[in-house]
Amino acid sequence: MKIVCSKTELLNRVNIVLKAVPAKSTMPILECLIIEVKNDRIKLISNDMELGIETLVKGEIIEPGTVAVNAKVFSEIIRKLPDNDVTIDTDSNYLLTIICEKAKFTISGKSGEEFPYLPNIEKKSAVVLSQFTLKEVIRQTVFSISDNESNKIMTGELFEINGSELKVVSLDGHRISIRKITLKEEYNDIKVIVPGKTLIEVSKILSGEFTDEISLFFTDKHILFEFDDTIVLSRLIEGEYYKINQMLSSDYETKVTINKKELLNCIDRATLLIKETEKKPIIVKIDDRNMELKINSTIGSMDEEIDITKEGKDITIGFNPKFFIEALRVIDDEDIDIYLINPKAPCFIRDKDESYIYLILPVNFNSAVQ
Amino acid sequence: MKIVCSKTELLNRVNIVLKAVPAKSTMPILECLIIEVKNDRIKLISNDMELGIETLVKGEIIEPGTVAVNAKVFSEIIRKLPDNDVTIDTDSNYLLTIICEKAKFTISGKSGEEFPYLPNIEKKSAVVLSQFTLKEVIRQTVFSISDNESNKIMTGELFEINGSELKVVSLDGHRISIRKITLKEEYNDIKVIVPGKTLIEVSKILSGEFTDEISLFFTDKHILFEFDDTIVLSRLIEGEYYKINQMLSSDYETKVTINKKELLNCIDRATLLIKETEKKPIIVKIDDRNMELKINSTIGSMDEEIDITKEGKDITIGFNPKFFIEALRVIDDEDIDIYLINPKAPCFIRDKDESYIYLILPVNFNSAVQ
Repeated sequence: MKIVCSKTELLNRVNIVLKAVPAKSTMPILECLIIEVKNDRIKLISNDMELGIETLVKGEIIEPGTVAVNAKVFSEIIRKLPDNDVTIDTDSNYLLTIICEKAKFTISGKSGEEFPYLPNIEKKSAVVLSQFTLKEVIRQTVFSISDNESNKIMTGELFEINGSELKVVSLDGHRISIRKITLKEEYNDIKVIVPGKTLIEVSKILSGEFTDEISLFFTDKHILFEFDDTIVLSRLIEGEYYKINQMLSSDYETKVTINKKELLNCIDRATLLIKETEKKPIIVKIDDRNMELKINSTIGSMDEEIDITKEGKDITIGFNPKFFIEALRVIDDEDIDIYLINPKAPCFIRDKDESYIYLILPVNFNSAVQ
Repeated sequence: MKIVCSKTELLNRVNIVLKAVPAKSTMPILECLIIEVKNDRIKLISNDMELGIETLVKGEIIEPGTVAVNAKVFSEIIRKLPDNDVTIDTDSNYLLTIICEKAKFTISGKSGEEFPYLPNIEKKSAVVLSQFTLKEVIRQTVFSISDNESNKIMTGELFEINGSELKVVSLDGHRISIRKITLKEEYNDIKVIVPGKTLIEVSKILSGEFTDEISLFFTDKHILFEFDDTIVLSRLIEGEYYKINQMLSSDYETKVTINKKELLNCIDRATLLIKETEKKPIIVKIDDRNMELKINSTIGSMDEEIDITKEGKDITIGFNPKFFIEALRVIDDEDIDIYLINPKAPCFIRDKDESYIYLILPVNFNSAVQ
């Protein structure tokens, strides 16, 4: 195998496949990436058995062939090379020579025979959306998946397509995040659970440009993302997702309109007083024109008022400040609406079209601190 | 005690005294900073028993007094306040109230009685230099102090003044770094060992501006840095510094002139192949027009050539690449001169005026890898 390509192009492509290389594996071959040169294409491949990535590298092919090389070592060498053409050459013992200007590296590779190549997926009926939109939808929901592997379904996100609506849902038992977007076309109904890890890695590779598109393909067991000469293939999580509709309610007793940034900064300040081991709630007291936020901990106390517009009853309610901070951080609106029922019922942050809904469960608070 | 000052001014000053607050101490009072309001001055004080800092805060005094407050908690609160005037008020129980706009924090403080205030140092004959120069001199030498506390003298730097010359030296048994600068005036001879930790912390506080000055005062036991309404007081390290003059030699058999950046990038690339536990040398082979650098490790091998200008004999010599990288990083010259004698003698990187000298000991290398 012998190829020549630019350092920048090669590094970009290596960085893409690195997303599916496990840091440590009981199967050493998984710590490798594959350079496969055949059919006039230079392809890099990685696979951690949950997630597989293939991406094409632009370059000149001098001799076809395939080699497996430790992904971390290879990527670090490429990263530090001068910004010029790189020649990669292997001999019959899979010894890899990397030459760029006057620098010459030699590292040992392997045959790619043991490598678990990606299965062939029959691609039918692509769901097409902009990379910007998918990246945003992931950012706005993925923070509320659970990282507890004992409940596999909560570690993923629901992707549900009905007609031209894509609904993405994540939940962790204390809160639910929902984003809905309208697709350009109508599609057959789809309802799958995509691993959160897949979405996080895909999101890192996406350009985030509004004009760049991505195609999603679904099978019973897999989701395939196709974009920019790259495919990312992930297993789906098996099982039935939670029935969230019965947890959502549009009834409310109190509606508050508040400046998002002011609320976020205030709660952020309050969390200074909480050590990680302490689970202190923030107490929110809503009357006609003010939202008063209070926190009391072993370190000290904080008290702050924010101007609001209110409809309905006064209410005092306690929350885990982290859940509020994480939802507020991903909302782009300047002013937000918060809907409350009573101190034991979930609160909702949602816009008028319900393009986003964040449900947060309240926590009990000691009445002494009010 | 009651004061009002701007958040920005207060935060800047808190960040200065934080440099002498230990992360964890057996004496809890050392984890505090002192706010001392007397004689029409607002002063912040910290002391970790090696290093003490006092700095003045511009602000309005409503009531004098003194309070000790946990430095970490206080600094984090100030950092997150809105950008506006901050009012700090204490009651007779040292309960501290911090008010900024509508935010109100309450944290408990202590009396400052137990706090080890800085001793009064008689300031005579200041050595004056620009903050830029001191910051540069520290940066260009402090990397080669030893972090091994068993040899206290090596953890400090020699500050030696002879007439109008300031010489700063650090060494760790494998290398010596020397910087010489010319002061504007002549001073009495001074020869002290300043703790490396002090220099690192002082360097972080210095503005780095050429037009800002700093005054140094020396006593038998202390060095005092005075600048920008701030004093930093540090104990000196007791003992006699190494006699380095006998280790320096201006004889050489080979002189190499080389582009600094090319050499640095090349050695930097080579270190990719070395795991931290491995102590592999980089082999440098110098002939008439080329410097060839080679490294061989369990990961792979690298070979690269760099154009040079050479005087004297050919030579092959081995080095710990880290020592070269650290010296090259702090040299500002585009081209550097390297002086060599033989594969077992130290090599010198120095400029014509000897404003900097970096001595690096070679290491043995297996002749098989040449």
